[in-house]
Amino acid sequence: MPVSFSTSMRFKFPILAIALEAVIIILYGLFITYDDGANSRLVHNNTDKLEHFYKIYPSFQDVHVMIFVGFGFLMTFLKKYGFSSVGFNLLIAAFGLQWGTLMQGWLHHLKDGKIKVDIFSLINADFSTATALISFGAVLGKTSPIQLLIMTLLEITIFACNEHLVTSVLQAKDVGASMTIHAFGAYFGLAVSRVLYRPGLQGTLFLWMFWPSFNSAIVENPDGQYRAIINTYFSLAACVLTAYALSSLVDKKGKLDMVHIQNATLAGGVAAGTSADMMIYPYGSLLIGFTAGIISTVGFKYLTPIFASKLKIHDTCGVHNLHGMPGILGGIAGIIASAMASTNVYGVGLGLTFPARRTGILQAGYQAAGLGASLALALIGGTITGFILCISLWGQPPDQNCFDDDIYWEVPDGETENENLLSSEHGRQNTNAEA
Amino acid sequence: MPVSFSTSMRFKFPILAIALEAVIIILYGLFITYDDGANSRLVHNNTDKLEHFYKIYPSFQDVHVMIFVGFGFLMTFLKKYGFSSVGFNLLIAAFGLQWGTLMQGWLHHLKDGKIKVDIFSLINADFSTATALISFGAVLGKTSPIQLLIMTLLEITIFACNEHLVTSVLQAKDVGASMTIHAFGAYFGLAVSRVLYRPGLQGTLFLWMFWPSFNSAIVENPDGQYRAIINTYFSLAACVLTAYALSSLVDKKGKLDMVHIQNATLAGGVAAGTSADMMIYPYGSLLIGFTAGIISTVGFKYLTPIFASKLKIHDTCGVHNLHGMPGILGGIAGIIASAMASTNVYGVGLGLTFPARRTGILQAGYQAAGLGASLALALIGGTITGFILCISLWGQPPDQNCFDDDIYWEVPDGETENENLLSSEHGRQNTNAEA
Amino acid sequence: MPVSFSTSMRFKFPILAIALEAVIIILYGLFITYDDGANSRLVHNNTDKLEHFYKIYPSFQDVHVMIFVGFGFLMTFLKKYGFSSVGFNLLIAAFGLQWGTLMQGWLHHLKDGKIKVDIFSLINADFSTATALISFGAVLGKTSPIQLLIMTLLEITIFACNEHLVTSVLQAKDVGASMTIHAFGAYFGLAVSRVLYRPGLQGTLFLWMFWPSFNSAIVENPDGQYRAIINTYFSLAACVLTAYALSSLVDKKGKLDMVHIQNATLAGGVAAGTSADMMIYPYGSLLIGFTAGIISTVGFKYLTPIFASKLKIHDTCGVHNLHGMPGILGGIAGIIASAMASTNVYGVGLGLTFPARRTGILQAGYQAAGLGASLALALIGGTITGFILCISLWGQPPDQNCFDDDIYWEVPDGETENENLLSSEHGRQNTNAEA
Repeated sequence: MPVSFSTSMRFKFPILAIALEAVIIILYGLFITYDDGANSRLVHNNTDKLEHFYKIYPSFQDVHVMIFVGFGFLMTFLKKYGFSSVGFNLLIAAFGLQWGTLMQGWLHHLKDGKIKVDIFSLINADFSTATALISFGAVLGKTSPIQLLIMTLLEITIFACNEHLVTSVLQAKDVGASMTIHAFGAYFGLAVSRVLYRPGLQGTLFLWMFWPSFNSAIVENPDGQYRAIINTYFSLAACVLTAYALSSLVDKKGKLDMVHIQNATLAGGVAAGTSADMMIYPYGSLLIGFTAGIISTVGFKYLTPIFASKLKIHDTCGVHNLHGMPGILGGIAGIIASAMASTNVYGVGLGLTFPARRTGILQAGYQAAGLGASLALALIGGTITGFILCISLWGQPPDQNCFDDDIYWEVPDGETENENLLSSEHGRQNTNAEA
Repeated sequence: MPVSFSTSMRFKFPILAIALEAVIIILYGLFITYDDGANSRLVHNNTDKLEHFYKIYPSFQDVHVMIFVGFGFLMTFLKKYGFSSVGFNLLIAAFGLQWGTLMQGWLHHLKDGKIKVDIFSLINADFSTATALISFGAVLGKTSPIQLLIMTLLEITIFACNEHLVTSVLQAKDVGASMTIHAFGAYFGLAVSRVLYRPGLQGTLFLWMFWPSFNSAIVENPDGQYRAIINTYFSLAACVLTAYALSSLVDKKGKLDMVHIQNATLAGGVAAGTSADMMIYPYGSLLIGFTAGIISTVGFKYLTPIFASKLKIHDTCGVHNLHGMPGILGGIAGIIASAMASTNVYGVGLGLTFPARRTGILQAGYQAAGLGASLALALIGGTITGFILCISLWGQPPDQNCFDDDIYWEVPDGETENENLLSSEHGRQNTNAEA
Repeated sequence: MPVSFSTSMRFKFPILAIALEAVIIILYGLFITYDDGANSRLVHNNTDKLEHFYKIYPSFQDVHVMIFVGFGFLMTFLKKYGFSSVGFNLLIAAFGLQWGTLMQGWLHHLKDGKIKVDIFSLINADFSTATALISFGAVLGKTSPIQLLIMTLLEITIFACNEHLVTSVLQAKDVGASMTIHAFGAYFGLAVSRVLYRPGLQGTLFLWMFWPSFNSAIVENPDGQYRAIINTYFSLAACVLTAYALSSLVDKKGKLDMVHIQNATLAGGVAAGTSADMMIYPYGSLLIGFTAGIISTVGFKYLTPIFASKLKIHDTCGVHNLHGMPGILGGIAGIIASAMASTNVYGVGLGLTFPARRTGILQAGYQAAGLGASLALALIGGTITGFILCISLWGQPPDQNCFDDDIYWEVPDGETENENLLSSEHGRQNTNAEA
């Protein structure tokens, strides 16, 4: 093994992890406190915050399931790499939510030198990890846990800056984060690297089911939250039909391809993100899902091979097809829906859905700027991060050790036993495999 | 392969799926709009609708998990048919909820030519797909995706008519839908066809856990919703004990049978459906669950073989034991509980639980009529649908290709790899299987 | 097979199960009724109870998932013992919640000879089963279903007494039940017996995600509930980082051990239990999680082998490392946080979080007494239960039949088919295993 590949995590990884945690504890001691609604001393004048907390907590738990089970099991397909897929997903998410709370707090919520955490902080912290997890899908199998911690640190930092730029400075709308999470995470990850992964259907289903909560969780006006749920629900449903139809259509024998089903059926959720709380009506949501299912499936079939052969970008994982293109579609849908917004349609609630109170056309322009910023920052940030991760110190595995749990995990002799640790449901399965 | 079995889905399936989706988009454009609570222009006089939405949304997500994960993984046992089981479950549910929204809207909620979708529409749309998914269990492995789309279309149409007849015309009560979903879906499916399937325990658990949400989600008065949760919780618990007891009792060595455990433990949820919001008290719920666990397990052991040998109905899947008989039991429990209802027990709330405001005995008569109607329409509708599905154009597989994913799915060379796509958790498992 | 091992469950098990259920139905008929909020006749003066019910129901469902999926799949690793792990988990939980409702009702809520069940009864009933399920982890594979029913009956009885002693008599605080459930269940189980089990990561994730609901579900004041969620969220996140770090640190090649990851990442939830609703601030929560991740991982690596070799306690399952030591850590954190409590920090809400209204030091003393009582009752009760379970009549398996489903389950010839019943997701997997 060449000197440049010092993959041993001995001391390096635990010292980094403990140091990061220690720094975070100190920063939390300095900056983080409870929101007034959760502060015994201050709650009595803030009981309305409690009402809100009870309404949002179920959505928070749905988002939590998406982050930890949905994303976790979406990337466990690779043979001999199941431990790393789920295990590193948990590591990235647990570290990312702590760092995301700080970054988003500093940028959005610093007041008298303190960040007050509430239920929205928790949801936004979960959200910020989603970017890192999408990018993880693009570097899976070729990165050490040290590299992943560093990537998470850098990506969430850049994500928080971009999100601040898009939603606060530009005041572009992106409630379901088509642009700031999905497109951003996809292009950031593609810029860092790219690699094969294939999702599991169980992960797909948990994402599919809870996507209405994801797209609605941070909408502030209740009727907007209600619309975000309805719109996402229908967009996802339509997307399933076109994903199935296109999967059959592009196959020369008319058969379905499970890889399409597991990815493209989710594209409707991604694409509905930006305009989820707008008055696009159920048929508009169906149209978005309809289109997303088509471009995602067609992307898998035709675009990915062209990328690989012509552009030398080996995006066989489909991050581009599931998060990238549908994220851009979501951004475009948001531009169109913003341009069409008026008091005619929204009544006096127009200012609640579009707090910047611009004309439709002007808001559409800012939406376009938000989309452009997200793509630009993703590609630039991802490229820079890619270079930083190249430093050999971080323990990147050499090519022949890629996609193998054994390099980072203690795999006991009775290998079959250990495999069951992941899934746990098939106590008896391997008995036969061994026989 | 005989000419009559033209199983290729090439063009036929994608054209049908896209055509259906296109028609639905047009119909949504014509008929569907947001409920006032989700309409930015109208929300300001309807904020009470938002309160209700927040209370019900968690239950909607529980029902969603039941439909997509519960039913999905309940039917994935068949070897070489896992792709189709989960994949077609998603297809049926995604199409069914769009069609169900229209059918139920036309029958129940058409006002000034518009259907306003709210959180109850979404729940009812999910509910309507449950009927099709139960019937799917009875035709699994022997039907093409085209046949499944047609069956879903027809069954949800008939279901919506029957549900309108039972709950609106007859004003029979069936909040947890023992009669209108479970018994209906089972006998509809049995009338269409019947075939082997065996459920997975994970699917069972997701159904078991969230059944209180299912039985309570559409109860209108809050105390009734509360009771529906408590009653269903206890009925399910008692059912577990008798299912285990009977499973051991009917085995000559006293051993347990996993097929019984996976099915009969759910019968308590089915049987509690009709009377879930009535004042049956926890001991009454325990009694219903107690009885359901017994008849379901006994049905599996003794009735299914008799059906097969004497009646030539090969219901080895147990739809009859899990949904059919317990559904009828639920209908009967509803008749008894209705007959015993009085202001003595319900106080001034009697009219909330029984809006028809009939005497107990009269209401019991209408309950019986509702049960009879559900069974009759299921058997007649299922038989007619069965004949329609026989048209060879729909691509039904010939006997030798039944229960094989390969006929409708692209299965790559590295077959073992592909299998993992479904479950995703066992990256390393098959390594050994191949060795 | 020696006479003393009469493992056949024929008649013995079904008669016991049906008898228990019959007795419970009679007791429910005598003692249990709906809470006023769920009682049609009484609800009209109690609509505030309905508001509370809607706020808590989502947390109840989260706890439900932890009990039935989390615990269930945490213990299914053992080869040839998957049926028993998940199947008996369901049996224990379903029986335990019925018995727990009665025991806790008699001790806490008996009024005019009646126990009124509400959403908190349901949650507490689920909680009481958790103790039995933790202990189940310690006797898994060596006990018959009869023994498990008896153990559940005895343990929940003793648990309810201890919980009454600690929270009502001593008025020690333990909202997330570090002491009364986790430490109690672990030491009770260790006193009954000890045995190998290894958890599955899926179970871990469901527990990890929903732990904030577990630790907050029964907190009465809303701001305390809010804090319990925030504190648990951060404690779990910090625990992940130190568990990963220590797992790598204690390995001589710096690799990670999946057994540590699957257990120690949860220790932060256990340890945050007692002080979850106290004003310990997010950095305090991080510190608790930080410490829990360390002691749990170190326990697995060093303490468990010492226990086995020196003390002859073969706790290879790690109940002591996941529930025992972190439970004690949680108790100690509660002592410290109580000692530091003052109106300075809590304002007028001090009495809501500490209803006993003692000085901080005095409350700390009672907290210590609560911890001591939990440990003492667990060890004494567990030892007595262990002796009771030794009676040969209960059908304990002989050593050579331990850890084998075949002794209690009907395992068909096509063994591979049957295995899939558990997991259901891999229809095609075993095809290759057999080839």
